Amino acid sequence: MKLQIAIDLTEMGKALCLAEKVKDIVDIVEIGTPLIIKEGMHPVRALKSKFPELCVLADTKIMDGGAIECHDACEAGADIVTVLALADQATITEVVKTAHAAGKQVLADLIGVDDLATKAQLCLTLGVDLIGVHTGVDRQKQGGTPLKDLTLLAEKIDPSKIAVAGGVSLQTIDDYVRLKPGIIIAGSALYNAADIKQAALAMKGCLRK
Amino acid sequence: MKLQIAIDLTEMGKALCLAEKVKDIVDIVEIGTPLIIKEGMHPVRALKSKFPELCVLADTKIMDGGAIECHDACEAGADIVTVLALADQATITEVVKTAHAAGKQVLADLIGVDDLATKAQLCLTLGVDLIGVHTGVDRQKQGGTPLKDLTLLAEKIDPSKIAVAGGVSLQTIDDYVRLKPGIIIAGSALYNAADIKQAALAMKGCLRK
Repeated sequence: MKLQIAIDLTEMGKALCLAEKVKDIVDIVEIGTPLIIKEGMHPVRALKSKFPELCVLADTKIMDGGAIECHDACEAGADIVTVLALADQATITEVVKTAHAAGKQVLADLIGVDDLATKAQLCLTLGVDLIGVHTGVDRQKQGGTPLKDLTLLAEKIDPSKIAVAGGVSLQTIDDYVRLKPGIIIAGSALYNAADIKQAALAMKGCLRK
Repeated sequence: MKLQIAIDLTEMGKALCLAEKVKDIVDIVEIGTPLIIKEGMHPVRALKSKFPELCVLADTKIMDGGAIECHDACEAGADIVTVLALADQATITEVVKTAHAAGKQVLADLIGVDDLATKAQLCLTLGVDLIGVHTGVDRQKQGGTPLKDLTLLAEKIDPSKIAVAGGVSLQTIDDYVRLKPGIIIAGSALYNAADIKQAALAMKGCLRK
């Protein structure tokens, strides 16, 4: 089970500084969509040029233009690129083809999908490597969590292929660990912690229980 | 009826140069998603700082984090920001609230939506200003066009609120003009033309017929 930090800050300097603090604790550093919309692939490139061994996920949430957008993310150094599971099959296929040709992985984000199991199966058939069970931040504000979705999906597909995101914290992480997803993603619970290293170490400890 | 150029190139210098060439002919310049994924809001900022009067659309395709992502696009100078119609209602609402507070407009992109009329009506109810009927580039490669969707939707909602995109060219533009959408968006038919100014003038001419 891997721990991923999702850095959804929009100040590039601060985001890179946070990534540096936890790079030896977490398994994957995610450059979040808000920072990509503001700064493009520059933070991904900066992170990979400083720490080539670090696994970096670019949360591009590709919806169209699969080849070109995935190409630029891979070229900037992203190890994992995200596509929306709601995208056209042609787009998902283009993203998979482009990422795999570059030796990179693809995560299909199920955000907004109703029939999780069917769509997840389809994405896996199209060659996607990882399936993201994701309650968006706007839905979280209304009390949503990804726990129910993860429970449902972990019965239908190999849980080691699932990455779960959406408000995971030290208080709730055990509920997720129990379902054995391949990746647990934590965002503000880490980067808003008083001591981000300690918080990351504590979460990492929960994964080993 | 307005003419919008969608610049889906990923070289910022080239994109800005093209925008400059047609800025007095087209009504709206769109910085496309591929360039945003690569360079963030930098091209939007560059364009607006050089040509403050130019109407710039940032094709952010927001799917989550409505407030933060829309804020950054507006702050960079975008006059119109896009949200995916497939996004959660909470996200669309956040985007609308944020854009309107900044005096900007929101286009909801129907890409990937099955029930166009229902979703378009919902988006308008949520305060969205414009509805994008959009056949993505990956779907276009399979022969898809937005003409059928535009025909259907123009019967259900005020056509002046519709922007249509997806392979519109000088050969096909008359079919779209006939349906009187508010905005016709052309991409590669303009920026790949031998003479982009002439192509834009010719398209603009078709809108006035």
